[in-house]
Amino acid sequence: MNAFRFELLATDGAARTGVIHTPRGEIRTPAFMPVGTAGTVKAMLPQSVRETGADIVLGNTYHLMLRPGAERIARLGGLHKFMDWQRPILTDSGGFQVMSLSSLRKITEEGVRFQSHIDGHAEFLSPERAMEIQRLLGSDIQMVLDECPALPAEKSVIEKSLAMSMRWARRSRDAFNLQADEERSGRACFGIVQGGTYPDLRQRSAEALQEFGFDGYAVGGLAVGEPQAAMFETLEGTVPHLPTGKPHYLMGVGKPDDIVGAVLRGIDMFDCVLPTRSGRNGQAFTWEGTINLKNARHADDPAPLDPACRCPACRQFSRAYLHHVFKSQEIIASMLLTWHNLTFYQDLMSGLRDAVFGGRLGEFVTMFNGRRAATLPT
Amino acid sequence: MNAFRFELLATDGAARTGVIHTPRGEIRTPAFMPVGTAGTVKAMLPQSVRETGADIVLGNTYHLMLRPGAERIARLGGLHKFMDWQRPILTDSGGFQVMSLSSLRKITEEGVRFQSHIDGHAEFLSPERAMEIQRLLGSDIQMVLDECPALPAEKSVIEKSLAMSMRWARRSRDAFNLQADEERSGRACFGIVQGGTYPDLRQRSAEALQEFGFDGYAVGGLAVGEPQAAMFETLEGTVPHLPTGKPHYLMGVGKPDDIVGAVLRGIDMFDCVLPTRSGRNGQAFTWEGTINLKNARHADDPAPLDPACRCPACRQFSRAYLHHVFKSQEIIASMLLTWHNLTFYQDLMSGLRDAVFGGRLGEFVTMFNGRRAATLPT
Repeated sequence: MNAFRFELLATDGAARTGVIHTPRGEIRTPAFMPVGTAGTVKAMLPQSVRETGADIVLGNTYHLMLRPGAERIARLGGLHKFMDWQRPILTDSGGFQVMSLSSLRKITEEGVRFQSHIDGHAEFLSPERAMEIQRLLGSDIQMVLDECPALPAEKSVIEKSLAMSMRWARRSRDAFNLQADEERSGRACFGIVQGGTYPDLRQRSAEALQEFGFDGYAVGGLAVGEPQAAMFETLEGTVPHLPTGKPHYLMGVGKPDDIVGAVLRGIDMFDCVLPTRSGRNGQAFTWEGTINLKNARHADDPAPLDPACRCPACRQFSRAYLHHVFKSQEIIASMLLTWHNLTFYQDLMSGLRDAVFGGRLGEFVTMFNGRRAATLPT
Repeated sequence: MNAFRFELLATDGAARTGVIHTPRGEIRTPAFMPVGTAGTVKAMLPQSVRETGADIVLGNTYHLMLRPGAERIARLGGLHKFMDWQRPILTDSGGFQVMSLSSLRKITEEGVRFQSHIDGHAEFLSPERAMEIQRLLGSDIQMVLDECPALPAEKSVIEKSLAMSMRWARRSRDAFNLQADEERSGRACFGIVQGGTYPDLRQRSAEALQEFGFDGYAVGGLAVGEPQAAMFETLEGTVPHLPTGKPHYLMGVGKPDDIVGAVLRGIDMFDCVLPTRSGRNGQAFTWEGTINLKNARHADDPAPLDPACRCPACRQFSRAYLHHVFKSQEIIASMLLTWHNLTFYQDLMSGLRDAVFGGRLGEFVTMFNGRRAATLPT
């Protein structure tokens, strides 16, 4: 039986590089997980997602439970088969999206009642149901249900919310442990550290989760609008309280420099809609910063977006073409720039992994910051 | 120097199969040309278009002259480089779209003044300008500018319009002949037969065009809402008046059974937005007829769209998945079904070519009709 296992290969300061072994394949860390919300990484075929270098994608429990439904996906053979992605999938618990997308939420100790943002029908999500849905999807890494209080909030509010999230985490873990052996085999359950930007609450949360025991530890409740410095500070107060032998996952992050800074502080896994969503909006990530291809200055530019990039947008087309297809609202515009941005993100992760492994992360970060500082914004 | 040349390989009744030789590659006929209106076959990368089996794509002069502009494309190295399609491109003259999309048209003997449907700016298209634009784009097969009168119309209206279209055809051919030798080398100019559904006018038009001499002959003004029987009857009254040694192109056609019927009547080339546009709308073409994937009956169907099809939509996904991504309005839905429909169209053309070559077109048509008649509409 292939177990879920994190192998640490090297460290450089607080930064780490390693491999997460799963029955569906290896995940090289630090890893960026493209977001495949509704069973598709938007504007990409699964083989193209793999070509960018992704080892794992993320699926959203909230979206999939509403449409097409977890039981339906299970009947159809699970999410991997459904979306034709045979490598690992991490699913969130649905909690964050319930708070941000649904209406008429009512949160109690038992769980959360809400109305679907698609058709308004009543739904219920509890720690037990969140784990059941993730089991039905066939998720390789399942996240506990937690409450995500809106920020800014009083410490007493965060503290109260955290206490319930920890009770929910235990119920989630218990529910995961009750999954049949043959289903659970090789699958992981991750806890989520909450506590806002309060170091004492973060520490309390990290320690509580370790009492229950998880296969990996996520840092939640960040990247919700706070300054980058606050996020980094919170990581510095949190990551040292996480076990070194398990993966550390920073949820919903982020911009390239957020990722670099978080890797420096010991984070191993990331997910974010930024490369895909920005791609659909004409914004390209490059080593020299971001470029808005809708800008008229690109209309006559025969140069590629990034001459060193290996993606089809850069190998086959000019900036003038990319500008044209965005202005014309052609689907190929979203396809090409999503592909480019995901390639950039994966190449960034690859660069970070190699730098940590080679003990030259400081050099990499200097190069990364220098290239961006040396060019004007476009 | 590679000349533009049509090689007839075999006939079966009025039907023909052959090869159009061009410096940019061979076009196997009967050929279906996917429509790449604004420099992209919508929702497809160019390498994927090629994978479906397309030897040539069509570009729309009207759209490209308005955005990004013919002179700009010329400065950027031509349309082939711009859209990264290195094989042959046929461009229409813009006439049809001027009539159907622009506003405030004023048609005179000299040409047509109109306002852009994008931003309202004033534009002018004459036979000479239409050929200049197609030269700037670098088109391999350039179409004469003609007038497309709205149908139904009195015979006298059609006759008057036809007379001007023939004068415009001569001016177009003259303008093409004045293109510099190194630019014109291996490129073709096609005339367009008009005349509504009047056999005598169609014959007169076909004969007039041959006086000027063209590299190929198109049948225009059909597929504008007339019954299929009228279209076939018009072809029967027109194609016999075209030279057998040149390609015959039926513009803007059509549904699979339109194409089969037109091949039976001696047509070699087709273009139509139907497979791409229908694909974006959830309609799939199959040998058993069309299938609407938005229909709720597919929501739980684990079967592929067409188990025999070689496209990614059919090889990698279930009908349930395709239904889900259409309901969720995901970009992958358009990507997959466009790919499928273009694959179906190219496989249909391949089947027709093989059947004509093997002298068994009747058998093929019986099979084609039988499979469709044997199944209920979905």
